[in-house]
Amino acid sequence: PSINRKPHEKLTYKARAERPDTHPLAARLLRLMENKKSNLCLSADVTRAEELLRLAEELGPLICVLKTHVDILEDFSQKVAQTLKDLSEKHDFLIFEDRKFADIGNTVKHQYGGGQYRISSWSHIINAHAVPGPGVIKGLRAVGQPLERGCLLIAQMSSQGSLATGSYTEAVVKMAEENSDFVFGFICGGKISSEPGFVHMTPGVHLHSGGDDLGQQYCSPSDVIGGKESDVIIVGRGILAAPDKVVAAEEYRKAGWEAYQKRIPRDYEKP
Amino acid sequence: PSINRKPHEKLTYKARAERPDTHPLAARLLRLMENKKSNLCLSADVTRAEELLRLAEELGPLICVLKTHVDILEDFSQKVAQTLKDLSEKHDFLIFEDRKFADIGNTVKHQYGGGQYRISSWSHIINAHAVPGPGVIKGLRAVGQPLERGCLLIAQMSSQGSLATGSYTEAVVKMAEENSDFVFGFICGGKISSEPGFVHMTPGVHLHSGGDDLGQQYCSPSDVIGGKESDVIIVGRGILAAPDKVVAAEEYRKAGWEAYQKRIPRDYEKP
Repeated sequence: PSINRKPHEKLTYKARAERPDTHPLAARLLRLMENKKSNLCLSADVTRAEELLRLAEELGPLICVLKTHVDILEDFSQKVAQTLKDLSEKHDFLIFEDRKFADIGNTVKHQYGGGQYRISSWSHIINAHAVPGPGVIKGLRAVGQPLERGCLLIAQMSSQGSLATGSYTEAVVKMAEENSDFVFGFICGGKISSEPGFVHMTPGVHLHSGGDDLGQQYCSPSDVIGGKESDVIIVGRGILAAPDKVVAAEEYRKAGWEAYQKRIPRDYEKP
Repeated sequence: PSINRKPHEKLTYKARAERPDTHPLAARLLRLMENKKSNLCLSADVTRAEELLRLAEELGPLICVLKTHVDILEDFSQKVAQTLKDLSEKHDFLIFEDRKFADIGNTVKHQYGGGQYRISSWSHIINAHAVPGPGVIKGLRAVGQPLERGCLLIAQMSSQGSLATGSYTEAVVKMAEENSDFVFGFICGGKISSEPGFVHMTPGVHLHSGGDDLGQQYCSPSDVIGGKESDVIIVGRGILAAPDKVVAAEEYRKAGWEAYQKRIPRDYEKP
């Protein structure tokens, strides 16, 4: 069967990376996912830089993306950012600062490129809420595009009572499609666009169902990659709260990868 | 006429401050607005701490709120925050870190109370997008309520193509009303709730109409306070780009205050 006529979710990450309309950063990500056999993004929600760098060093080989919240680190410095960048090259993963930009274009431009964090100088991927309108993308693009960065739009959230549903989500997909020179995918619960170049990343993933007392709700890797046809599982507490983080990360990597393999037709690689 | 039967926008700030169901921080703000005859919030979007502190010192007497984006400062330190706090007491204004929190409860808790900025330790007011659902308020409240802080929800935005309209805005108003022990008002284009305790603050205010090339759109003080019945005008570039910032701030303070006085019935203060 022709690759191009297969639905999005039946294509391998590699085939999607090779399409001419796929954003360069999405292509890079999809390719390294295939190479490392990992669709696991670690949500490294820690408050000490030392801990963040240890996670990057130890779990780096198992993940495709390391998601950070540098604004919860008590001891961030540009040296920490540089070490993180070095580790991302050593272990071949992308850095994703989960800043959730959500202001007007003129403000996010400064928040992204300036301040003490200078996020654009070290984070390959950033994300934004679409609620301010397309100006938020325009502002971020002015800073990120010359650096070959890319942006995910937050189309859905894993928290209870989120307003990112229905027509809101539809408007986000449209905004992404209209700005695909900088936006290369989504934070979402499952597949929401059939453009094969877009990468879908899903937070709130846990091998055990449940949530927390602040509205977070969990889904399993097989549900997210298989049933909901997302591309990347974002796992935080499932790994960070485990007694052995490397063992837990490998368990999530395997669960995510097997769900992906099940989704791809068996005859795919045949001539 | 009975104060209580007057519509919200006909009540003085002082009368609204004195109502028993008004949030303590809203009461404090409404009272100082009346005392200083100012409904002007300065949006201090500068990238150097020295400049921020100079603005706070020079314009402090003219404003009710100083709005900051500390994450665009190149040289933030806790000493800067302390000086800002001292100036807020000296000149009797509130500090509002315009962080636009927009993540799940567990994350915003750390972003608000921790990291290098420790926003909760120096900012009286913060704001949040409602898009994650009520968990974002729950997370922020856990940190801010013991410190007597308060939160504004972003119900509308001044940028072109914003998704914060219609049913989204309605959901935000409902979320605010259900969380009025911590949420005391809105970022909005005009009055959206008839609860007299809620404070409405409107960005994108400029004496000259127009906008920028990143989607920002401007309204005048008399339109915002008079026509749209908001309570506080948020002015950035109208003051910061003026040749004399003190003169410009006084011009905005006067325009905002006169629009407020026009809105209040003349017989109000009579016995």
